[in-house]
Amino acid sequence: MAAADLALASRALDAADPLSRFVERVRRPDQDLIYMDGNSLGAPSNVVLDAIGARADEWRRRLVGGWANWIELPATVGDRLGEVTLGAARGQVVISDSTTVNLYKLATAALDARPDRRAVVVDPGEFPSDRYVLDGLVERRGLERRASVDAETALLLRSHVDFRTGELRDMAGETAEAHAHGALTLWDTSHSVGVVDVRLDAACADLAVGCTYKYLGAGPGAPAFLYVRRDLADDLRNPIQGWFGQRDQFMMGPQYQPVDGVERFLTGTPNVLDLAAIEAAVGLVADAGIAAVRAKSVALTAHAVAAADSELAPLGFELATPREADRRGGHVALRHPDAWRVCRALLEHEAVVPDFREPDILRLGMPPLTTTFMDVSEAIVRTRRVVENGRHLGYDRERSRVT
Amino acid sequence: MAAADLALASRALDAADPLSRFVERVRRPDQDLIYMDGNSLGAPSNVVLDAIGARADEWRRRLVGGWANWIELPATVGDRLGEVTLGAARGQVVISDSTTVNLYKLATAALDARPDRRAVVVDPGEFPSDRYVLDGLVERRGLERRASVDAETALLLRSHVDFRTGELRDMAGETAEAHAHGALTLWDTSHSVGVVDVRLDAACADLAVGCTYKYLGAGPGAPAFLYVRRDLADDLRNPIQGWFGQRDQFMMGPQYQPVDGVERFLTGTPNVLDLAAIEAAVGLVADAGIAAVRAKSVALTAHAVAAADSELAPLGFELATPREADRRGGHVALRHPDAWRVCRALLEHEAVVPDFREPDILRLGMPPLTTTFMDVSEAIVRTRRVVENGRHLGYDRERSRVT
Repeated sequence: MAAADLALASRALDAADPLSRFVERVRRPDQDLIYMDGNSLGAPSNVVLDAIGARADEWRRRLVGGWANWIELPATVGDRLGEVTLGAARGQVVISDSTTVNLYKLATAALDARPDRRAVVVDPGEFPSDRYVLDGLVERRGLERRASVDAETALLLRSHVDFRTGELRDMAGETAEAHAHGALTLWDTSHSVGVVDVRLDAACADLAVGCTYKYLGAGPGAPAFLYVRRDLADDLRNPIQGWFGQRDQFMMGPQYQPVDGVERFLTGTPNVLDLAAIEAAVGLVADAGIAAVRAKSVALTAHAVAAADSELAPLGFELATPREADRRGGHVALRHPDAWRVCRALLEHEAVVPDFREPDILRLGMPPLTTTFMDVSEAIVRTRRVVENGRHLGYDRERSRVT
Repeated sequence: MAAADLALASRALDAADPLSRFVERVRRPDQDLIYMDGNSLGAPSNVVLDAIGARADEWRRRLVGGWANWIELPATVGDRLGEVTLGAARGQVVISDSTTVNLYKLATAALDARPDRRAVVVDPGEFPSDRYVLDGLVERRGLERRASVDAETALLLRSHVDFRTGELRDMAGETAEAHAHGALTLWDTSHSVGVVDVRLDAACADLAVGCTYKYLGAGPGAPAFLYVRRDLADDLRNPIQGWFGQRDQFMMGPQYQPVDGVERFLTGTPNVLDLAAIEAAVGLVADAGIAAVRAKSVALTAHAVAAADSELAPLGFELATPREADRRGGHVALRHPDAWRVCRALLEHEAVVPDFREPDILRLGMPPLTTTFMDVSEAIVRTRRVVENGRHLGYDRERSRVT
């Protein structure tokens, strides 16, 4: 496809986009910047920034009295997140801690629940923090890491969308297979929440975690969430026995007695300002509708794949992301031996913000509420320009650091 | 002392207060409100609210590029907090997670470091979340809880200031005694940080945790901190092996290899907005100087004790806080059989915000940067008025909840 045709096609797609109004509702820092790092840190929307300010003002006005409203937020915002983005009925999701800490709590609880099994399954390409957490538990308990689920498997830990390639896994199918062997499943939805129509209940997932700062855009380091299937919760135990999981918390009784349900996986005092950000971010997805968000996401990634085929394949780029729409998450990954240098050149000379993942992946995030089809094709066209002009060749990886 | 004399004395103390200028720098929600709940949730200062707004704007402007500045904040803000308020030299404090989660990490690490010892020491009156966390570890490992340190003790867990009575413990003395028995110490400084001149290094404390939302006023649910004595850190292991504690984090290598020093106790992605709040809050204490803050705190609590003696003792109130200044933290606790009802009446009729702690404690927090001597005496005088007028008798605890 010629560049002019690509631009024409992009314009037509943007004109037909039912979610185009949302791009306006996001406070773009610079209309000329093409921000495609949305799966590492989403851009803030107006409503999220306003919600943080309003909650800070509520703290100023209501002081400790604010807790009358805030104390239930980890559960109520969790319920809303579950309903709007995760396909989870009420009473199964809470906002709490970081993804890493939630993963630790749920993995520990799962291993405790399968004391006679000696293996866990986690892919060597799994997100580092997930692997490290699980490795710590494996070592401490003298378990083994295996490649596939069998009768010895206590737990399958799996990302719903692979953080490198963008591959979307078959949550229902893999969960069913794990269950057939009596194993529990723990899904990391960090790269699918807010962009893929996650269906935890329908997939019979046991446990899940995820972050709120990628596609949801709740801010750098905003708290994460966790999901525990309703019929499991009361049989599982949170290893971090904190007062926010305690029955009659303010009675401060002598013994730890966890509340019923998923709230037993709360630990310390929740972050109140960020709960406002998460609530606002979820509200934005609710307004758009997760089905429409996913539909636009599929269209954006399809557009990126087609543009990469015509513009970048001749320059040695290989698509790392599956071509089948139902196997793709919200980002597109391109392999190239010079991916790191191309990434630097795009950042410094082309006003495009992609990101780089070891060893050779150029990752293009495209959050549906903030990305236009023209953004996608422009990012691809500028990538071609960088490589054709050899602009990337001046970067020496040994002498720099990726930011 | 007559009420008029008390007011005169308060006015004189306020006139002589070298920190009176700080009261102006705190955005008081309502000049008529006497806010003495500062040890549950500190009031926001202008600089803290402004810092949150500025950091949110930095996210908007710099997007993922902001991480170049943010990635070191858990350590650099931790260092600053350590230097300004904790008596901790650099490289021993990080901002991370909640107090509860930090307590879990450090207690687990301490028990791992004393594998042959079967007991822990924690007071039954210790803060609930601290007890619950430790009880979970005790049960999981088949340990015992004992009343005092002996040769079997792996760990002494202790609050620097008791959350109920306000008693300030002898950190150096108790640590020395624990060390004489070969035990490690873990200090919860939640009720001393920002108001007491904590001297972790001088006391040879091994481990410490604390929150930032009481006297520091960094906001509801802002992240907590942890301290690991420098010569211990490399021998201790974080049970939650997260990617923020990993060497060469963004290389995302196959094995977890923790960094040297206290930063190995970081876990998941830190909360960037709240790090701005904490940094600003610490800056305010630095401006005032922790010695001056502590001096004013001692004067405020002495003023409260004297006023309570003259105004409230005749009405059946008993001082639960030690009379010796060097055994007092930053709040004053008064026991009264009707403490819960008095607390309600003060909140609803006297524009005083104290708080209540089971079973019979009226707790008066007095953060030195936001509290005047007149605030203190007015709170006491209004408490007398409530009880003299029987205003509290209309409240029925069974039909209400403490907010």
